[in-house]
Amino acid sequence: MGAISFKILEKIPGKLGRTGVLGTSHGEIKTPSFVVVGTKASVKALSPEQVSDLGAQVVLGNTYHLYLQPGDELVREAGGIGKFMNWSGPTMTDSGGFQVFSLGAAFGGSVNKFSQKGDVSQGSDSNKTTKLAKIDEDGVTFRSHIDGSEHRFTPERSIEIQHNIGADMIFAFDECTSPEADHDYQTEAMERTHRWAQRCVDFHKKSGKRNTQALFGIVQGGRFEDLRKRSAQVIGEMDFDGFGVGGSFEKEDIDTAVGWVNDLLPESKPRHLLGIGEPSDIFGGIENGIDLFDCVAPTRMARNGTLYTKDGRMNILNARYTHDLSPVENDCGCYTCLHYTRAYLAHLFRAKEMFAATLASIHNLAFITGLVDTIRDHINKGTFFEYKDMFLTRYYRKKSTSL
Amino acid sequence: MGAISFKILEKIPGKLGRTGVLGTSHGEIKTPSFVVVGTKASVKALSPEQVSDLGAQVVLGNTYHLYLQPGDELVREAGGIGKFMNWSGPTMTDSGGFQVFSLGAAFGGSVNKFSQKGDVSQGSDSNKTTKLAKIDEDGVTFRSHIDGSEHRFTPERSIEIQHNIGADMIFAFDECTSPEADHDYQTEAMERTHRWAQRCVDFHKKSGKRNTQALFGIVQGGRFEDLRKRSAQVIGEMDFDGFGVGGSFEKEDIDTAVGWVNDLLPESKPRHLLGIGEPSDIFGGIENGIDLFDCVAPTRMARNGTLYTKDGRMNILNARYTHDLSPVENDCGCYTCLHYTRAYLAHLFRAKEMFAATLASIHNLAFITGLVDTIRDHINKGTFFEYKDMFLTRYYRKKSTSL
Repeated sequence: MGAISFKILEKIPGKLGRTGVLGTSHGEIKTPSFVVVGTKASVKALSPEQVSDLGAQVVLGNTYHLYLQPGDELVREAGGIGKFMNWSGPTMTDSGGFQVFSLGAAFGGSVNKFSQKGDVSQGSDSNKTTKLAKIDEDGVTFRSHIDGSEHRFTPERSIEIQHNIGADMIFAFDECTSPEADHDYQTEAMERTHRWAQRCVDFHKKSGKRNTQALFGIVQGGRFEDLRKRSAQVIGEMDFDGFGVGGSFEKEDIDTAVGWVNDLLPESKPRHLLGIGEPSDIFGGIENGIDLFDCVAPTRMARNGTLYTKDGRMNILNARYTHDLSPVENDCGCYTCLHYTRAYLAHLFRAKEMFAATLASIHNLAFITGLVDTIRDHINKGTFFEYKDMFLTRYYRKKSTSL
Repeated sequence: MGAISFKILEKIPGKLGRTGVLGTSHGEIKTPSFVVVGTKASVKALSPEQVSDLGAQVVLGNTYHLYLQPGDELVREAGGIGKFMNWSGPTMTDSGGFQVFSLGAAFGGSVNKFSQKGDVSQGSDSNKTTKLAKIDEDGVTFRSHIDGSEHRFTPERSIEIQHNIGADMIFAFDECTSPEADHDYQTEAMERTHRWAQRCVDFHKKSGKRNTQALFGIVQGGRFEDLRKRSAQVIGEMDFDGFGVGGSFEKEDIDTAVGWVNDLLPESKPRHLLGIGEPSDIFGGIENGIDLFDCVAPTRMARNGTLYTKDGRMNILNARYTHDLSPVENDCGCYTCLHYTRAYLAHLFRAKEMFAATLASIHNLAFITGLVDTIRDHINKGTFFEYKDMFLTRYYRKKSTSL
């Protein structure tokens, strides 16, 4: 018996998409589901009760950050990430791979900022610069973005750290490449990721943690069809409890690449699209068989005053909202829309009050988790495509109004 | 029938201190009570539910800040400060006097930073500098600390703005002097404050707001016994619903000065000590007849990582707490202490997570409101002095341990 169960309920006719229930020892997750990010064991600006009340089912912490501070050993001593942060529901951690190659390597905060492959020191070129993460067959040496100290992750070390952090679902350690890396480099990185994946499976099995923590493998391969399919096949045959689809592709390729991958992955196991959360990508991902998403965009945008509405994004700092006594959205049932006006939010943002970030984050997370909830309902009712058309037409018609 | 009612329940034998119930149209306040400050219509880092859950009974907004932004007219249109900020309990506003003379005059954020009287332009000297607030018999001209724009408050204007903000209890417009100002200047300022007080009473009566908003007069007079007593007599005879004691005295004089004043003020009306919140001052104020306190110290200290405990203050950023899995206080029943460890708070502060300020503010406000609640219980039981000795001995024994 594994650490999680997964049951498929309904499917989108003719497509890979489905609804289901993912069972963990900390409660069930109705899928598809949006996973809320709590990077450093805190969903920024929110209490766990606020996270729960807005409809979130599961929280994801970042292994790289928690390893550096406060340290995974401390989180273990505190009873694991859930107990440490007072979140009683299901939890996940990523492998640290993405951050090691972005933050740890000290060249910008997003994989999209990777330029051509030369930016990441690769294989035999690894001595080129001391600033960057150094990859070898065994693992990656990197510098902390906090104090510049040197650290090393191997597949085994990543899993060990994730055992200490103790989330219900953890990820295999992978190499996160630039979406612009060429076919040769993507192939090399992918093959290494596959060897690392097997080492993660072996280490996890030996550790005796298989019944308490589910291990997800990560499919890579960039934007190349042959590599994505090969990676899905290889990773899909390994003894994982679920799968992640690595986000190393251009935005316009997401639906297609996800389709290639999920067509080959075992149908019976859950699939997580890493770091993706735009409404259009959520529809595309779900249609193509994704069960879980995580993304920092809703909370990051919220802290900047950008709010989701069904008519597209709005910037609450726009002067027109300073005297607007209507809620952010009239038909939204979130805490923020039930109790506060646009004018109040506009005031809090201008006054630099912390509660501005709280109210905006609640609305944006409620919007995205609610969107995924509604999509799930429509799949169950057989009306996915009608809802998708209606939602996206309205949302993107006014997309760039106020941003 | 006035906007508030006040009933005295028990007294401290041989002293001016008492417990009571202050009734407002937004609920009753058990007194003595600590008033939580929500300067810009938000208690920093907290939701109104968190404010209520930690035991706060009443919130005070700052007229100066709300007038400048978002504007008192907007707050009125939004239904008043309570509705605007989603706080359903009793509310107060100050008169703006303190901020006009500190922030508005652009020389530091605290009245204790006033140096000798020359810092505030005074009466006939008012043209000395354009940087400072300019006082004349009719009112004060000052510059916004936000954009430097020029504004003018008169007693009538302050009351009009407070009518727009719409709190249950409002304050007369007073001149806030430096505690170091000499007897001559304190006399001059006090006499002007008395004339302004009468104008506030007259304007408030004419406005027809007496049955919805209670007006408190403010006793000034600095550290001088003759002036404090004179001010208490003059202000006490005016038709106010309650009284404020202005905080223009040195810390060591507070108990004495409060005693002079409250001995003369009408016993049947509530008394508010403005801007004071240290545990020793709370005991001293209550013993000498104070019913209400407000102070930003608990939340301001919280945001800096300084936490109240019964053994004195602790600085959660001290290295010894990074691996301390006990709560801030073992016997504290606040949300923070029930659910989080010192190590988690230490981590959040180091990680610069906003939730650090939330958890620390909850603890500090719960500590101070809880302290006042406990003092009230001991007055009712007749054990005030025993509790005061016990608390202060323990608290100040270790006062400077970690600060």
